[in-house]
Parts: sequence; structure tokens; C-alpha cells
Amino acid sequence: MPVKGKKGMPEPTLRRLTHYLHLLTHLRKKGITGISSPKIAKELNLDATQVKKDIQYTEIVGRPKTGFDVDELIDSIKLCLDWNTHQDAFLIGVGNLGKAMLSYDFYYRYGLNIVSGFDIDEQLIGTYMHNIEILNVDTLVDLAGKLNVEIGVITCPASSAQAAADLLVAGGIKGIWNFAPRNLKVPDDVIVENAQFSQSLALLTRRLSEKRGSSE
Amino acid sequence: MPVKGKKGMPEPTLRRLTHYLHLLTHLRKKGITGISSPKIAKELNLDATQVKKDIQYTEIVGRPKTGFDVDELIDSIKLCLDWNTHQDAFLIGVGNLGKAMLSYDFYYRYGLNIVSGFDIDEQLIGTYMHNIEILNVDTLVDLAGKLNVEIGVITCPASSAQAAADLLVAGGIKGIWNFAPRNLKVPDDVIVENAQFSQSLALLTRRLSEKRGSSE
Repeated sequence: MPVKGKKGMPEPTLRRLTHYLHLLTHLRKKGITGISSPKIAKELNLDATQVKKDIQYTEIVGRPKTGFDVDELIDSIKLCLDWNTHQDAFLIGVGNLGKAMLSYDFYYRYGLNIVSGFDIDEQLIGTYMHNIEILNVDTLVDLAGKLNVEIGVITCPASSAQAAADLLVAGGIKGIWNFAPRNLKVPDDVIVENAQFSQSLALLTRRLSEKRGSSE
Repeated sequence: MPVKGKKGMPEPTLRRLTHYLHLLTHLRKKGITGISSPKIAKELNLDATQVKKDIQYTEIVGRPKTGFDVDELIDSIKLCLDWNTHQDAFLIGVGNLGKAMLSYDFYYRYGLNIVSGFDIDEQLIGTYMHNIEILNVDTLVDLAGKLNVEIGVITCPASSAQAAADLLVAGGIKGIWNFAPRNLKVPDDVIVENAQFSQSLALLTRRLSEKRGSSE
């Protein structure tokens, strides 16, 4: 299937598209069917030109006066992010964060279907969490190949993150969503998206300290 | 205290600084005391000029030949991110994600000290998780003011995220770290950093789909 939306979409645009999606989903629940880009900008406290440009990346066509149909815009953004179909994923590391991730409805919201969790803890192996079975990490490589799973989620501690990545790569996984605070070494054809909490915390604490500095 | 590092540090630089910090912390554990920016670039598969530029933002001074002292570079990055001192925070919503956050050692790594968790669940109120007491959300506003807490972490469901933000604002909180998939409305002087999983997932799934598209 061809990729929807313009190629080379900038990272900030992709991040903002998820904000638009949260807003639109919320508005749809409230029964709102149409919205314009200036209205979205106002709701999210963003620049209207920026929002317009971001939405143009999705290649949706707006209508004069009414703007966009909420349903169509949701679909259009989901197509861009490849969230309109489901994608199977494995999760490694069923500690506190792993458990939280298994309980989260990624499938319903974003099409991410966590098929199995993996751990080394004998107490966990064979149990189910939110209908997802926890398997022995030794079975991962074989199973990933058989099921043709493309995405691996790493929620184990930093100290075992590289070993987890190596297993995922050996299993033929194409994309790694890494929550461990460790930089992973993977072959060039494997995509790693670092989702460590530290990144957004850095943005928050830096902005707070700049604000404190400027008000002194 | 004046802000360390150059003003107007770009968001991608701040995100990358956390990656450098993870690497440096890892190297320090292994007993490595000095590193150059090309070496960091190579370890993280980044452009050397980019890494050099990022590090210049911290205003650290490198030494000819040996590059940077690992300890000094760690301190320098931490100063930039305001992670060298501790900052108190409240967390609202002690569900799966909230529990995971309470178990995570933000204090040791990033100086973020989660003082209390808040929830509406009677079963949780009065209990302790990882030595952090869970309190009734009704007490938040009063307590935030008394303790002069500046950061609020929102880990409740989307449906109650705005109510949580309103409480934090009423308590005088200056920065909100928002994990709920909902856009928050807050006064202009309150900083919101959206840390929803959906943002990084969007980057991963988009890049995967672009790769699939280009290899067809």
C-alpha cells in the first residue's frame, strides 16, 4: 500500500498530528462534525498557519466555510500515521512500565496490537495480563519470525535493553519502540524510536528553569 | 540561579542531550573518564557536527585531544536540564501508568522527586507505593500551595485530565507533565509538556510505513 500523506513529514508535524487527533476524537465524542484549522489552532493554542500547513501534509481537502469533516480528518491523520490498520507488536520486560503498557488500549486508539509480553521471571511466564500472555523470552526469536511481528516494545531495565534489542532484531523485527534509558545498537535497516520519559521531562524542566531565570 | 547553557536551546537538541546523558552515564559505569564529540556521534549513530553543536549549547569547554571529561559533561548537561537539583512533583492518577511512574527512579536519574500521588479511589487513598503516600485528590490544592510544589504529573484517564490540570493550576503549579491523551487548557503562565505515548508511536509507525512504501 502506498504511503499516505506527503513524504518527508517533519517530526514536529507528526507530533502535532497526534495532538489534533486527540482533540478531534474528543470533539467527535461531543457530537461535533466539522472544524476549521483556525479553530483547531485556537483550541490547542497553536499558530493557525502552522496547523494549516500540518494538515496539508495529510493531503485532505477542506471545504470552503465549513472547513473539515471531523471523521474525514481523523481518518486522514490515522492514514498518515499508519494507525488505520492494526500492527502486531511484542513487548519485552513486564515490570511496572510493561504492565502499564499492556493495560493501555493502544489497539483501539492507535492500531498497535500487543500480541505477547516477554520476560525472564518464572513467576510471570504463562500468566495473562489484560488477555495478553506472558511468554519466556527464550521463545521470542522463533515466535517473531513465525508470526511475522514487525514492532518490538522495550520496557525492560536499561541494563538488559541491548540484549532485548538483539533478540528483537534476530526475530526479524523492523521497528523498536524503546522506553529503556539506554541507546540501542541495531542494524541500519531497523528503526529505533526512543520514547524515554527523560526526553519530555528535559523539555519541561528546561522551560521551567528558563522561565524562572527570565522572571528574576 | 541563572539558567545554565545558551538560551533558546532547540527542542531536538534538548531531546538529544538526554541521549548523550544516557550514554555518558553508561560509559561512566564502565569506568570511562573521557570522550570526544565524534566518539559520541559514532556511538549514537548521529552526525558529528550536530553532536558538537548540541554540546556547545551546554557551554562546557572541551580539552584538545582528550575531548570532554565524562563527569564534567554529565554535570554540564544536567545543569542545562535543571536536573542537578531536586524538584518536587505531585502525580495525579494512580492507575497502571501512575503506579509505573511511582516505581521509577526519577529522583536518582533526573532530580524529579514525586512527593505524593493523588487519586479518587478510596482503596488507594492512605496506602503507600514505593514509599510515596497516595492522598485524596481533594487535598491537592491546599497541599501544593503549602509545599510549594511546582510540577504536576498527570497520569489519569483522558476524561479526567482537564479536571486534574485545573486542580494543579489552582494549587499554583507552574509546569504540567501530561501523559493523558487530551489537550489541556491552562493559563498562559503554566507550561504543559505533552508526553503522550502516541507522539513517539506516530514517529515510529510513520517511519516504518515510509520504509515499506519505498521498498515496494
